[in-house]
Amino acid sequence: MKNDLQIAKEIELKPITTIAEELNILDDIECYGKYKAKIDLSVMNNQRKDGKLVLVTAISPTKAGEGKTTMTVGLGQGFYHVGKQSVIALREPSLGPVMGLKGGAAGGGYSQVLPMEDLNLHFTGDIHAITSANNAICALLDNHIYQGNECEIDPTKIVFKRCLDLNDRTLREITIGQGSHVNGIERKDGFNITVASEIMAVLCLATSLEDLKERIGNIIVAYTKNDQPVFVKDLKIQGAITMLLKDALKPNLVQTCENTPAIVHGGPFANIAHGCNSIIATKTALKLGEYVVTEAGFGADLGAEKFLDIKCREGKLTPDCVVIVATVRALKMHGGVEYDNLKEENVEALAKGIENLAKHIDSIQKFNLPYVVAVNQFTHDTEAELEFLKKWCEENNHPCEIANVWLNGGAGAKELANRVIELVENNDQTFKVLYEREAKLEDKILTIAKNIYGARGVVYTDEAKNQLQKIKELGYEDFLVCMAKTPVSLSDDPKVLGRPTNFDITIREIRISAGAGFIVCLTGNVLTMPGLPKQPAALKMDVTPEGECVGLF
Amino acid sequence: MKNDLQIAKEIELKPITTIAEELNILDDIECYGKYKAKIDLSVMNNQRKDGKLVLVTAISPTKAGEGKTTMTVGLGQGFYHVGKQSVIALREPSLGPVMGLKGGAAGGGYSQVLPMEDLNLHFTGDIHAITSANNAICALLDNHIYQGNECEIDPTKIVFKRCLDLNDRTLREITIGQGSHVNGIERKDGFNITVASEIMAVLCLATSLEDLKERIGNIIVAYTKNDQPVFVKDLKIQGAITMLLKDALKPNLVQTCENTPAIVHGGPFANIAHGCNSIIATKTALKLGEYVVTEAGFGADLGAEKFLDIKCREGKLTPDCVVIVATVRALKMHGGVEYDNLKEENVEALAKGIENLAKHIDSIQKFNLPYVVAVNQFTHDTEAELEFLKKWCEENNHPCEIANVWLNGGAGAKELANRVIELVENNDQTFKVLYEREAKLEDKILTIAKNIYGARGVVYTDEAKNQLQKIKELGYEDFLVCMAKTPVSLSDDPKVLGRPTNFDITIREIRISAGAGFIVCLTGNVLTMPGLPKQPAALKMDVTPEGECVGLF
Repeated sequence: MKNDLQIAKEIELKPITTIAEELNILDDIECYGKYKAKIDLSVMNNQRKDGKLVLVTAISPTKAGEGKTTMTVGLGQGFYHVGKQSVIALREPSLGPVMGLKGGAAGGGYSQVLPMEDLNLHFTGDIHAITSANNAICALLDNHIYQGNECEIDPTKIVFKRCLDLNDRTLREITIGQGSHVNGIERKDGFNITVASEIMAVLCLATSLEDLKERIGNIIVAYTKNDQPVFVKDLKIQGAITMLLKDALKPNLVQTCENTPAIVHGGPFANIAHGCNSIIATKTALKLGEYVVTEAGFGADLGAEKFLDIKCREGKLTPDCVVIVATVRALKMHGGVEYDNLKEENVEALAKGIENLAKHIDSIQKFNLPYVVAVNQFTHDTEAELEFLKKWCEENNHPCEIANVWLNGGAGAKELANRVIELVENNDQTFKVLYEREAKLEDKILTIAKNIYGARGVVYTDEAKNQLQKIKELGYEDFLVCMAKTPVSLSDDPKVLGRPTNFDITIREIRISAGAGFIVCLTGNVLTMPGLPKQPAALKMDVTPEGECVGLF
Repeated sequence: MKNDLQIAKEIELKPITTIAEELNILDDIECYGKYKAKIDLSVMNNQRKDGKLVLVTAISPTKAGEGKTTMTVGLGQGFYHVGKQSVIALREPSLGPVMGLKGGAAGGGYSQVLPMEDLNLHFTGDIHAITSANNAICALLDNHIYQGNECEIDPTKIVFKRCLDLNDRTLREITIGQGSHVNGIERKDGFNITVASEIMAVLCLATSLEDLKERIGNIIVAYTKNDQPVFVKDLKIQGAITMLLKDALKPNLVQTCENTPAIVHGGPFANIAHGCNSIIATKTALKLGEYVVTEAGFGADLGAEKFLDIKCREGKLTPDCVVIVATVRALKMHGGVEYDNLKEENVEALAKGIENLAKHIDSIQKFNLPYVVAVNQFTHDTEAELEFLKKWCEENNHPCEIANVWLNGGAGAKELANRVIELVENNDQTFKVLYEREAKLEDKILTIAKNIYGARGVVYTDEAKNQLQKIKELGYEDFLVCMAKTPVSLSDDPKVLGRPTNFDITIREIRISAGAGFIVCLTGNVLTMPGLPKQPAALKMDVTPEGECVGLF
């Protein structure tokens, strides 16, 4: 079978100007090469009527792979097969994982976003601009201390780290400012991967350049000797930093395998941040598509919850339907099957693992949204397994469609697209967020833990309790809650698959993302700088003398 | 008077497609926004006849400013005023100094390259791609050690540093890999500014994507426990790293204030590297312009020598004329006047300082090239001073023209352009490099020191002697020589202005840039990571809600 790169290279792309012309925004784009463009921010605010917003989420991810992005692209293409025009809105891939484990990709098979080489390498430079902006803050901060420290920053209380868009474990914990005193003040520091930077979160939540500047100004970079927060605006650099991001804030237009429009913009981590493409990208897509298909990171417990409670609230977005992606393979893993045995039929394990799906459906229902289970068909799925899955959905009144978008592209999602249209057109529910902004922070956290994870309660470490107290003193009680939990389990224990019950969620640490406007509740160790594997994907990569990429897959 | 940004904003730019159309390369470009484009590598190899190559260099730089880039742009524009078509080729500005002292700029007044905001911020992402490529090498190298260290790298003998395109003194000397053992192997490290990276030097010397890959493979990253060099190719990542640079290798097309074409590409440091725009940019420009005006960093002792001995040799380029920029102000400083007293007429000091110009002229003559002194006129230059300068040139048979390109743009360089044309058309000299590649390294160094700096001899520290021995053992005797010396003085003592005599050059350290193919001879402390000043330019920068930059000047 062909791999993703081979398929990608066979596709004849349309010039991006043609894609823009079809969307009536030829005058509102700036080309970045022949197949990428930036869309002017004005498009988002034009007078056209918004399209319908469809969120693609999934069951708890397993090693088996669920294909959420592939389904998103396939569904976006699928709408065209049933006479509806659509735009998809996705996150930008980070270079770190591309060079490390993943080797790249944005979707797969005949449901990819293209040009995949550009997407997976530097794209339009957004992530590089964020790296620059992030590190400019750090350099200016350390320089501020070195040049007299007017803000009285305590060098041991700096919370804003440097970043690089790479997987580089050796930069997690470092000491800077060593050697001669002209090298600045020595202190402990560390690098995050750029997509884990608060700058990325802030860029993705901003609704205008002004809003971006305000959010950047509000980022807490450090505390004074008296424990008072020091903001980016205290350093008087929010203007310069926003200037560095003025182009990165514009959403990027590309296309799918079937030459349908795709907006790819922003890519915050789904643990330490909210894990969705930018609000600006989604709002722009809504002006351009009858149907907008977007996705959120990890499973519905993390990505969808944050999409609905954080992104939709901040962006005043009203979703119209949720697609919950499941695979027979992954559900079997949730039912206890080992990865190596997935090819064997096992309806019993499927019946057990399906509880994971059931919980995610239950969670989505709490938002008052119509939903459909999209079964992403894989080669080794047996008829009995697929039949079981369909029947279970039927018996429980869950809309369900099987789609094979990897192999068949949009044609593989026709039934799914039709079902979404039907659900959206007949929707008489009113979307509601899970918790009110005005609620107490503990109550907001408990609401998520109980309703979305199925937890019994929430336990706080002493450290977390103190941090919560501090957050309240700083006046951030009305902040939203961004949970950082293992995506692998509904609980905070990555070993427990399926649908765990009778467990508590332990909040170990709480951080403040004051620019983003949320607190981050860490339930375990969250790695904000990944490492490289023993055989990094980079070892297989090459470029031909003609400039063709090799080894992206 | 208007500042550079105000002037830049008044200029009506042509779409870059129009500029490309005028050069007959509309099918060979990829647009990056409306006013920037990347030019395909094939243009450099087309069948058109090469234009004439004019190098702009200068006297030893002083705080007074010489305006070498402004003169380069002005002369490029000036050719059009006398009926010749031209293309200029310049380096890309680094973001670090822009946020630090400089606040940006590429030329000045009515002799600027535009759009200046883009140029000074992320431009087409080349420098960001270099940062990524550089740091990917580092991450993969540290991962190699962590995952078993097959190459037996000695972690205390790693010579390839990380980099960022920022002025950040605290990253000069750091310790990485601290904390838990899953954070990699602890060791000393440091960051360079990206433009000081060997990757930048290599990109600017490469003549094709294949050549780039070979050069990257040849970069020495570390030594083994037995002191054997470890190359990038030993890590098997030269393909991946080159892939990251495939677009950065393409030269960028922009325009001047007068809508004439400008190619801006690559920007290696002029101390630790050779300080010129890329060979590919210059070769491409030669296919597109009757006259190509390019510049080299610092004064003629550094930039021009390296341009002629390194860049022209590696790129098989034959320059046709050299323009030596001088200002009354700077020559007065060389004659002993303090910066604050420069507005006062002082012919006596000028007469003394002119010896600096005399030495640089003398140096250029050794390359068998025609030259002209271009006096960059400033507001406070008096008639007596300009008259003295002109007369001195006349008496010594040095062609000389006064140009006021800041205020008058190309019109201010008409006489200069005519003089260059005359010199080029009547040139019967044959360009020769200063030293043969095959000569002994010590002889090559001595040749530069004596002929270009006017030194008596060369002294080596013990460390440098050992390094030289090592270099010979590694088989690099035929490498070219890249001198890293203070630009402020012809000697290696920055306090000695004018034309020093009876001095030795002390080589303190010798580094190997095996990818670039040269050794770097350090005559003093060379800062490869600048710091920020007490009041960084960033503090004045801002962006309007409409996306207009403020505070770039």
